[in-house]
Amino acid sequence: MEVTNKYIAIRSHIDGAPRESDFELKTEALSVSNEPGCNDVVVKTIYVSIDPYQINRMKKFSSSQKTSTFAVAITPGQAIDAFGVGRVVASGHPGFEKDDLVAGLISWGEYSIVRGGNMLNKLDSMGFPLSYHVGILGFSGLTAYGGFFHICNPKKGEKVFVSAASGSVGNLVGQYAKLFGCYVVGCAGSQKKVELLKEKLGFDDAFNYKEETDLKSTLKRYFPEGIDIYFDNVGAEMLEAAVANMNIYGRVAVCGVISEYTDTKKRAAPDMVDVVYKRIKIHGFLAGDLMNLYADFFSTTTDYLRTGKIQVIEDISHGLENVPSAFIGLFCGDNVGKKIVKVTDDYN
Amino acid sequence: MEVTNKYIAIRSHIDGAPRESDFELKTEALSVSNEPGCNDVVVKTIYVSIDPYQINRMKKFSSSQKTSTFAVAITPGQAIDAFGVGRVVASGHPGFEKDDLVAGLISWGEYSIVRGGNMLNKLDSMGFPLSYHVGILGFSGLTAYGGFFHICNPKKGEKVFVSAASGSVGNLVGQYAKLFGCYVVGCAGSQKKVELLKEKLGFDDAFNYKEETDLKSTLKRYFPEGIDIYFDNVGAEMLEAAVANMNIYGRVAVCGVISEYTDTKKRAAPDMVDVVYKRIKIHGFLAGDLMNLYADFFSTTTDYLRTGKIQVIEDISHGLENVPSAFIGLFCGDNVGKKIVKVTDDYN
Repeated sequence: MEVTNKYIAIRSHIDGAPRESDFELKTEALSVSNEPGCNDVVVKTIYVSIDPYQINRMKKFSSSQKTSTFAVAITPGQAIDAFGVGRVVASGHPGFEKDDLVAGLISWGEYSIVRGGNMLNKLDSMGFPLSYHVGILGFSGLTAYGGFFHICNPKKGEKVFVSAASGSVGNLVGQYAKLFGCYVVGCAGSQKKVELLKEKLGFDDAFNYKEETDLKSTLKRYFPEGIDIYFDNVGAEMLEAAVANMNIYGRVAVCGVISEYTDTKKRAAPDMVDVVYKRIKIHGFLAGDLMNLYADFFSTTTDYLRTGKIQVIEDISHGLENVPSAFIGLFCGDNVGKKIVKVTDDYN
Repeated sequence: MEVTNKYIAIRSHIDGAPRESDFELKTEALSVSNEPGCNDVVVKTIYVSIDPYQINRMKKFSSSQKTSTFAVAITPGQAIDAFGVGRVVASGHPGFEKDDLVAGLISWGEYSIVRGGNMLNKLDSMGFPLSYHVGILGFSGLTAYGGFFHICNPKKGEKVFVSAASGSVGNLVGQYAKLFGCYVVGCAGSQKKVELLKEKLGFDDAFNYKEETDLKSTLKRYFPEGIDIYFDNVGAEMLEAAVANMNIYGRVAVCGVISEYTDTKKRAAPDMVDVVYKRIKIHGFLAGDLMNLYADFFSTTTDYLRTGKIQVIEDISHGLENVPSAFIGLFCGDNVGKKIVKVTDDYN
């Protein structure tokens, strides 16, 4: 069997903010074997996840590339693996059959050959839209859930600050924290996003960081009693300001530092005197390390979804050709909620 | 009863590196009641501890002053409380009698009135020199022990880096880590200190940071397989270099950042991309929070002392008038091991 595959590749390594010209849409003939024993699974992409961390894989060098199996370097011209949902079109693997719905590591392409079915799972949609399995029920959800409950170790009533709070992970951290009984303030980059946080997602308060000139004072205003937990998605000045406003025994969970990804000069220099005397913990983490929480995360979150306690904020573009702009938009704050591209219109 | 007391005070708040002219030796008449019920304990100082953190209390403002009961601001002209060992000369407190040996919060002075016997304990020397109870068996020891075992959570064979490794805490961290079965490299500020670490304290290796121009490369040379644990006493560039050389799941325990205390512009800006992808934990702590480990710390350390497994490195000056120079010396790297001042010659 042979299919014509289209996929997105980078033309060369990207150091700095990504631009349209950094990407190309390529076409290849995929020769597909579905003979038993070949163990390959051919997946037709339905939805793919668009995540900021991919930029670290596109650089010529990033320390992330050496330290995580999720962040190995991407080769120019080659397909870019990414989390997504699709349908099996051919399989030589005993665990998968044609037409199975699957979720896992596929690619920014119409088709993916998943060797040995590696990092691929059969998917029971459980009645939820398939896109949910890319975002809220996928790694974004696990990052938010595990990061908040396991890394931050919250207590009811604690004061929680979330940056990039309308993003894929931040919006869920805020919602989990509210449902748990914390006081939650988020920041985002537009008035529209701020309204979403306060009016739809139930944040106690929110602000537009672009309208603030002194983030330390801003946080002091929003947290007169100090911050107990800071869920950091951005790094740099925001992390410094949060540490300056933390209470003793404060915890900082860092799952990404988007503001530092495209600007190597941008760094967080939190006051270590604060870190010592306030006994602050700053803890970097990746969702891949929290798989032991997956069952708990999944059952809690599907319950919240069924009872309408949690809102799903998705930002879906259509068509493979829009993957680059969707990705570029992440670094300009274009997305509201989980950024996903729907690659085929064959499925709803 | 009235005694003439001499004590060290600051003339005014100190912002920057301390100098002799910042201090004065004052004399006061102490009126001492030892009537039962007054609850005061008058202690004649034998040894006092000289610790870098005091500089944060001497500043006009330091965030430390608000966040720790150990770091409240010092008032110019007033006595400066400090950990030490002494002997009771008068007591109205039922828990203390004249001539009791005590350890606890006394002052940089010949005599201290300890109201209500607060933060004072009767001391059984257990046959050890009294100075040991100021350093290795006091807060320096507990900081090293609790910081290493509790905050760093070490595994045998892990690679440990200690900065200010010939200092009061660092030298003990290195020795505990070696006794536990780790590979330990320390850094210090002179060749003499480096030799001490390697030849007397059993460090696997050590280097003089003042002879290095690129700390990242230096640490790569000493840790070709990466650092698992960094016990940070200095902050700034050393913390950045350590984070750059850490392995995944690395831990940084920060009990002080002496290089940042006297220079507000000096900051550590560790690469947060490393912190995230290597899932690094940076954890500030104070020994005061580790009192639950005290019994364990004390029995382990006294065993090590009795069996000669641990070396005691003390740097003792004599005479109250030498407290300022002893303190100033901490910030120039003058001390080797625990800095203590012996205030009276009445006791051995």
